[in-house]
Amino acid sequence: MSDKADSGKSYHLKCTGAALETANAHSDPTANITLFGSCFCPFVQRAWVAFEYLGIDYYVNEVDPYKKPAELLQVSPKGLVPGLKLNNYHPPRSVNESTVIIEFLEDIAATTTTKKGFLPPVTDPYARALIRLQADHVNRSLVPAFYRFLQSQDEEKQISSGKEFLESIEGLVKLFERAEQGSDSKFGLWREDGELSLADVMAGPWIFRATNALEYYKGFKYPPGPKFQAYVNRLVSHPAFAKTCSTRELYIDSYERYAYNRPNTSQVANAINSGRGLP
Amino acid sequence: MSDKADSGKSYHLKCTGAALETANAHSDPTANITLFGSCFCPFVQRAWVAFEYLGIDYYVNEVDPYKKPAELLQVSPKGLVPGLKLNNYHPPRSVNESTVIIEFLEDIAATTTTKKGFLPPVTDPYARALIRLQADHVNRSLVPAFYRFLQSQDEEKQISSGKEFLESIEGLVKLFERAEQGSDSKFGLWREDGELSLADVMAGPWIFRATNALEYYKGFKYPPGPKFQAYVNRLVSHPAFAKTCSTRELYIDSYERYAYNRPNTSQVANAINSGRGLP
Repeated sequence: MSDKADSGKSYHLKCTGAALETANAHSDPTANITLFGSCFCPFVQRAWVAFEYLGIDYYVNEVDPYKKPAELLQVSPKGLVPGLKLNNYHPPRSVNESTVIIEFLEDIAATTTTKKGFLPPVTDPYARALIRLQADHVNRSLVPAFYRFLQSQDEEKQISSGKEFLESIEGLVKLFERAEQGSDSKFGLWREDGELSLADVMAGPWIFRATNALEYYKGFKYPPGPKFQAYVNRLVSHPAFAKTCSTRELYIDSYERYAYNRPNTSQVANAINSGRGLP
Repeated sequence: MSDKADSGKSYHLKCTGAALETANAHSDPTANITLFGSCFCPFVQRAWVAFEYLGIDYYVNEVDPYKKPAELLQVSPKGLVPGLKLNNYHPPRSVNESTVIIEFLEDIAATTTTKKGFLPPVTDPYARALIRLQADHVNRSLVPAFYRFLQSQDEEKQISSGKEFLESIEGLVKLFERAEQGSDSKFGLWREDGELSLADVMAGPWIFRATNALEYYKGFKYPPGPKFQAYVNRLVSHPAFAKTCSTRELYIDSYERYAYNRPNTSQVANAINSGRGLP
């Protein structure tokens, strides 16, 4: 499915493009919250999009996630990015796990002036549940399917895991349609006039990486037809999302390790290889 | 680790003990919400505890989850329990996935008179994050570790998976301690005077089943020392939890299929055997 060979590229250590401009605009270590991140990591991008969309100030501290600096281990016991350090607290406070970080930031926004959020108001529990079903599908199906496909090596595995990834995308589309039909809330970029939803933030980094790393290494193409493509376009051009994207080359380079399933690529890659849930 | 042999027992189809009394008290199909459940299923118990604690009315419809009746498939596309049917809506509305159901019910309670919930108020985002980190650990580590241990067959696997389950319990305790030290919120039964938290509801059904199915089939014992035992006691004697518990025999009988890893025991068991995330 690809005529490329492992060229021994390593992952990048610094953002490029729009993400670099955004990082430079958030380089003041005296901000209330420090975001420990790595430029290519999709879990970090989730948190980063949330900061940008919700309008919460932060300082980006780019670290090498495979070197696990001591300051990262203090906020994230497994040494995984993203991690937040809440500055100005004694004893120190920290929050890790991308899904928990997003909800934490949403809670902060709910009690500040922006009042922005990723879910319909609590007065519409059903509309919220429809979005949460999408986010649950992303975390438990789409994300692991992405890595199984990217790390697949022999042709048979590439075909079966590629099919599985597409099925997971189709499952997400079904949940998008269910929400569109079942609620008149405007959350979800699947709607032409939709607002960024929890599910969009959860899925976005992998939807985007399917257009660079998966496309380049596994020849992946999204299902034909204008509707899904329009969704992808709305997502990657959304200001909060676009601001956190590096240039294509950064992803191609950084994912070569995954694409050839090099030993000990990462905790995520190892979990996929050993049939365990993602760390 | 066990001198028992597979005696061919099948799962129960009807609650016993306190759970049966509770089911009988919720046998009016004209309630606003129908809970599709199965008596031994821990994912169902999560939802059931939430209904009881939040004081939301419901009708329990006990189904055979392996026969997948058409009315269940209408509310839960994979045929998995729990599923909620929201009655009195045209077109019909339904919610599935236990984690989504719990948050849905919490949203309903937030806008009704009980105002009960499983998390500290949104004005304390950090205290909420500390509980959410626990719930995330339960879903991604404790629950799959429980099944890997219960389904383990040869001695080596039983030892390694039993160790892994204990480590997951210890990881949860670390997060309990982190919350206790990091916040003065009263959420979490880990505190002597604590209130039922999201993490307690998420973990409870497996914490409980470790005292019957895991104890009986794998000789499992919780770590020595009074603190964890006191937590288990507070949990299983909490009124909302105790009301949803059947008698010990029901769990012993219903989990024999898992304990001997019979082929096609369930979608959950198959996922564990094939190294995939839980359905």
